[in-house]
Amino acid sequence: MIVDGKAIAQKIKSALKEEISRSKRKIRLAVLKVGDDPVTAKYLEVKKKFAEAIGVDVRIYEVPVDISNNKLRERLSEIVHIEENDGVIVQLPMPAGINMQYILDAITLEKDPDMLSSKSWGKFSTGKSKIFPPVVGAIKTIFDENKTELKGKNAVVVGAGRLVGKPVAAWLIGEGTTVSVIDENTKNPEDYTKKADIIISGVGKPRLIKADMVRDGVVAIDCGTSESSGTVSGDIDLDVSKKASTFAPVPGGVGPITIAMLFRNLIELSK
Amino acid sequence: MIVDGKAIAQKIKSALKEEISRSKRKIRLAVLKVGDDPVTAKYLEVKKKFAEAIGVDVRIYEVPVDISNNKLRERLSEIVHIEENDGVIVQLPMPAGINMQYILDAITLEKDPDMLSSKSWGKFSTGKSKIFPPVVGAIKTIFDENKTELKGKNAVVVGAGRLVGKPVAAWLIGEGTTVSVIDENTKNPEDYTKKADIIISGVGKPRLIKADMVRDGVVAIDCGTSESSGTVSGDIDLDVSKKASTFAPVPGGVGPITIAMLFRNLIELSK
Repeated sequence: MIVDGKAIAQKIKSALKEEISRSKRKIRLAVLKVGDDPVTAKYLEVKKKFAEAIGVDVRIYEVPVDISNNKLRERLSEIVHIEENDGVIVQLPMPAGINMQYILDAITLEKDPDMLSSKSWGKFSTGKSKIFPPVVGAIKTIFDENKTELKGKNAVVVGAGRLVGKPVAAWLIGEGTTVSVIDENTKNPEDYTKKADIIISGVGKPRLIKADMVRDGVVAIDCGTSESSGTVSGDIDLDVSKKASTFAPVPGGVGPITIAMLFRNLIELSK
Repeated sequence: MIVDGKAIAQKIKSALKEEISRSKRKIRLAVLKVGDDPVTAKYLEVKKKFAEAIGVDVRIYEVPVDISNNKLRERLSEIVHIEENDGVIVQLPMPAGINMQYILDAITLEKDPDMLSSKSWGKFSTGKSKIFPPVVGAIKTIFDENKTELKGKNAVVVGAGRLVGKPVAAWLIGEGTTVSVIDENTKNPEDYTKKADIIISGVGKPRLIKADMVRDGVVAIDCGTSESSGTVSGDIDLDVSKKASTFAPVPGGVGPITIAMLFRNLIELSK
């Protein structure tokens, strides 16, 4: 079963549109954009389209790439304090040299649909948050749709990054899943991947996980994106789909659902 | 090598005493005590003794066992706002029926030496905290003393609880360790424990981990405590010491160092 992320996102989009139009509320997402990296701009474009489709306003605040950490944090704090902004995100990736967590910590709990501030992380990982980090929400949606059992299953999380590995591992641990987090320091990654009922990867290395590294029936969720010579690849080789019971590929799997989850969080927060 | 937690704690105690006496500052730890469970009282007694030895004041605030969640949180908030209290902890275990995280979230970042609030957890797990949860600080002290390499090592964390498993796993993941978190739902726990370079257990089931479940040379750190008919047992059978390169037993291993770490955090926060 190949997960059709676009179709799932489309369903959520329709539901959100319906909800917003019924409530007659004005909802605004503020986006801080640092510099003008084309990748950043592309990600932002996708969000703008989604917002338009469901009737959410997007206000983009641009700052130059050479802004200092303190100035950037101040600016973000101003944006957070504008009442009309129901949620505030910083479009990633940020330029090198920026202390990402320091900046993101200027976003208050009530206006953090991306859930990237320390406070949101704390709420989430102590089980006190009503919303989930968007990528976790997306994976949860896929598991819910497929009725994937989590308790007692062996899950392997590949990569221990702030955006995928850490939040996904924290969530799965809370669900009673047996979770192993492996990274580039792990000596025999196949020892882990071959025994995994569930593999979730968020590294950004093209086709890192091959079909001979997984077992038949695995649930394989790709959250890694890399781009070279104009081609987008995931961490998980597409051949894995032949062995997997469920396979969420890149592109087209988790990605579109993650954007839908961002807006679902925004609407939740705006209530 | 059997870790002598008391000796390590004694060294830290002397250093803290020296530091406080040099700085001539008054430092006060506030402890909220709910009801009068004898286990709670016993843990508290140990902390009071440590505090006395280094010259820290302890102020105990008692509330009845049948207090409501809201009243308890209000009371804790009042205690936090008393200027003379440099740090505030709630003596655990709390009585059943209390929403622990809700209560603990009344403690501000600046006064949270136990690091049990959501905010402290967020700071810690996003790598933005100068101090560590005491049990993590204790394990880190043992590893530092023994020059235990963490990067690329296979660590197994037994139990996914709020006090041991979750913070220890989050910390190790950040250190580049390959971490597996197993719990009572895990089907073949030996598959994990037998391959582990490092085992850290925080379950509270007597002698859960036997010598035949670990490999020669393992670093075994026991953070589980259970008590029956007056005897305190750890999660890790004492026979494991025969195979382990480093073994921190219960009692006498991590426990005393954890208390020392609580006071080190308190002094750090009071600066």
